[in-house]
Amino acid sequence: MFKKILVANRGEIALRVIRTCKEMGIKTVAVYSTADIDSLHVRFADEAVCIGPAPSSESYLKMANIIAAAEITNADAIHPGYGFLSENAKFSKICEEHNIKFIGASADMIDKMGDKASAKSTMKAAGVPCVPGSEGIIEDFEECEKLAVETGYPVMLKATAGGGGKGMRAVWKPEDLRDAWDDARQESKAAFGNNDMYMEKLIEEPRHIEIQIVGDSSGKACHLSERDCSIQRRHQKLTEEVPSPFMTDKLRKAMGDAAVKAAEFIKYEGAGTVEFLVDKHRNFYFMEMNTRIQVEHPITEQVIDFDLIREQILVAAGVPISGKNYTPKLHSIECRINAEDPYNNFRPSPGRITVLHAPGGHGIRLDTHVYAGYSIPPNYDSMIAKLITTAQTREEAINKMKRALDEFVIEGIKTTIPFHRQLMDHPDYVAGNYTTKFMEDFVMKEEEE
Amino acid sequence: MFKKILVANRGEIALRVIRTCKEMGIKTVAVYSTADIDSLHVRFADEAVCIGPAPSSESYLKMANIIAAAEITNADAIHPGYGFLSENAKFSKICEEHNIKFIGASADMIDKMGDKASAKSTMKAAGVPCVPGSEGIIEDFEECEKLAVETGYPVMLKATAGGGGKGMRAVWKPEDLRDAWDDARQESKAAFGNNDMYMEKLIEEPRHIEIQIVGDSSGKACHLSERDCSIQRRHQKLTEEVPSPFMTDKLRKAMGDAAVKAAEFIKYEGAGTVEFLVDKHRNFYFMEMNTRIQVEHPITEQVIDFDLIREQILVAAGVPISGKNYTPKLHSIECRINAEDPYNNFRPSPGRITVLHAPGGHGIRLDTHVYAGYSIPPNYDSMIAKLITTAQTREEAINKMKRALDEFVIEGIKTTIPFHRQLMDHPDYVAGNYTTKFMEDFVMKEEEE
Repeated sequence: MFKKILVANRGEIALRVIRTCKEMGIKTVAVYSTADIDSLHVRFADEAVCIGPAPSSESYLKMANIIAAAEITNADAIHPGYGFLSENAKFSKICEEHNIKFIGASADMIDKMGDKASAKSTMKAAGVPCVPGSEGIIEDFEECEKLAVETGYPVMLKATAGGGGKGMRAVWKPEDLRDAWDDARQESKAAFGNNDMYMEKLIEEPRHIEIQIVGDSSGKACHLSERDCSIQRRHQKLTEEVPSPFMTDKLRKAMGDAAVKAAEFIKYEGAGTVEFLVDKHRNFYFMEMNTRIQVEHPITEQVIDFDLIREQILVAAGVPISGKNYTPKLHSIECRINAEDPYNNFRPSPGRITVLHAPGGHGIRLDTHVYAGYSIPPNYDSMIAKLITTAQTREEAINKMKRALDEFVIEGIKTTIPFHRQLMDHPDYVAGNYTTKFMEDFVMKEEEE
Repeated sequence: MFKKILVANRGEIALRVIRTCKEMGIKTVAVYSTADIDSLHVRFADEAVCIGPAPSSESYLKMANIIAAAEITNADAIHPGYGFLSENAKFSKICEEHNIKFIGASADMIDKMGDKASAKSTMKAAGVPCVPGSEGIIEDFEECEKLAVETGYPVMLKATAGGGGKGMRAVWKPEDLRDAWDDARQESKAAFGNNDMYMEKLIEEPRHIEIQIVGDSSGKACHLSERDCSIQRRHQKLTEEVPSPFMTDKLRKAMGDAAVKAAEFIKYEGAGTVEFLVDKHRNFYFMEMNTRIQVEHPITEQVIDFDLIREQILVAAGVPISGKNYTPKLHSIECRINAEDPYNNFRPSPGRITVLHAPGGHGIRLDTHVYAGYSIPPNYDSMIAKLITTAQTREEAINKMKRALDEFVIEGIKTTIPFHRQLMDHPDYVAGNYTTKFMEDFVMKEEEE
């Protein structure tokens, strides 16, 4: 087993990893930027090394500084957390070259899964369903017609140069294809000076449902059930839950099998996540694979009853996985508490936390690196806490979340607590009736007293 | 279902009950003494009624004031928590007379189990093993000899007037009985002017292991596994765990069966605990039954995955129990954090909490009514928090507890955190090798920095 792990991250995930290392009897090294000197990950690690100032490019992304810190402190492994260097193939390789175990994917694996096109073709080869469509640019309308039939209506025509919805058309039936083709090409030409088109199946009422997997060095993998992460704002997840309210036993088996097949096909080692889009007919399509731990991993831990960071460390040390697939017996929800003002377009709200009172009791978990008196630096991601509730049913988990949000007191800054309070009361959320489009129509009600 | 529950208690258990009520959509009424005006249970209840000053006899034990508070606020049920009026037959009866549901045992049941002698004879009738011995005063040495053989060596001779170990003799073999009899009688005569003796089986290496049970109005009961509460100081539990490190599947089945038999024999309704002494041969003997929720109930919740307060409320409302007996799949430990100075004979240390930082993350539960800036009144029990860890194995739960105790910062008062830290490192504790005598030999090591 490793003797000392350097945690190449900050904030709650750095603290999260340090906690597990402590519990495993492994020494820890924190690295920190000058902006993070008061952070709890610095206080709770056995050693701490300053690796430069903010912004991250001068510290948390500075590979040479991090490797130097690991060598100075004699760390035999590096845990990269999420973000920063966690999916950086070069960093994974450099660690390996320095004889430091990178607790994450190999450079090859990161390369393979990091590039969208290569990931998709690998998954196709593994037999994992991907969003159908053209292989590249569509030659002409004749090919477009043929492709639409092959792909199956509804389809999306998309300009290769497109962005911001320009040069995009949804087509629901064959008789509308011609007009859509002409309009989209014209629009794209006007906007981007290019009218190349490609086609994808239109995913109706898409949900973002991901499967947590873990694989070991023998090439064996298993899945630890799903997480529904459809509640997103500008591709930022706001809250996640397991099980997905849209899930069925049949769908979980199919998605779980596909994720395990994907992981075993590429001989994936460690914890990873296979993200899928699921349409209203419960067809699912590979989106991407994250070769690292994810922010929302705690809800999985709550329903599988073991520690995923511990599992990552064990797998990295060569310990085989149990190989057991999981069906959640409990329900768990995470709300990401950000230092943002939900009444003001979620604008970041860094500053000093003057009062902090954490909720507690039955079924409550809180992962946070902040405390009363802590000043949130403006340089980083605005997430300051993850509030997680777990109960026997979804209804109980929601009620528990409402109760916990009511108890949670953070003063001195604005937070997304009021947003989550309103979300937990939203009829569509309560009914489990939401897609990735949910936040497009969401409007905060009047400010609370 | 109840519309409004008055919580006739204070501190963490009042908050605990309020939290569950909130989650169930039931309105709550807090009662408080003038000393408790700043307590969180007052803040988080929907309504709060002051019922008098400290001490408890003027407020939390004042039945008329509590009933009046319930009537004024139109509460249809009262949850008594633990301590105070929770096992007061008169109060249970008064509630009933006022058409307020007492969420606890009936007056009859409390009477039956509250008196030690009547509880023991009831349990004997139910076929539950009780500590063998004389029925009353031993006539003469001849009877003493006969009884010792019936009871089985080793036996304890005890002066009926005894106390502080005076007039007590452990007898391990027949040839020592005569001398012990004479000595104990002489000593008792000298100390108390009375040499009446009774006999009990000597429980070798006793452990306090209790079985959580729940019964419903149909007379059906089930058990929710055990809690080992052997680590006690002057009969005050300090830490508890489930499973007991001394437990075997066979013993759990036998003790669980006995507890369920006891509960069904008396048609027990609600949550209750049957406390046993277990000797080194894994014989177990009924000690007493608690007809209420217990301080240490959270560790049971952690391994059964449901809320015991909710279960109490449901049963009181007439909902049938599932009837399923439980075998713990996880390990959970509770440390009672008291405002006491473990370096100074656990002397109470009330006062103002200046800084409070709670531990968090995977497998951590904290039940507390205190916060930074809160002044602990000197009038009540010194317990200020219950720190609970849960993991897949005992070793992991201990390591998690150590990590959490390290993170826990409480300034302004002395607490038992240093004691628990030393306990979690104690070789006998770590080995699970402890009895109710453990604290007699425990000495705190030098004060930490």
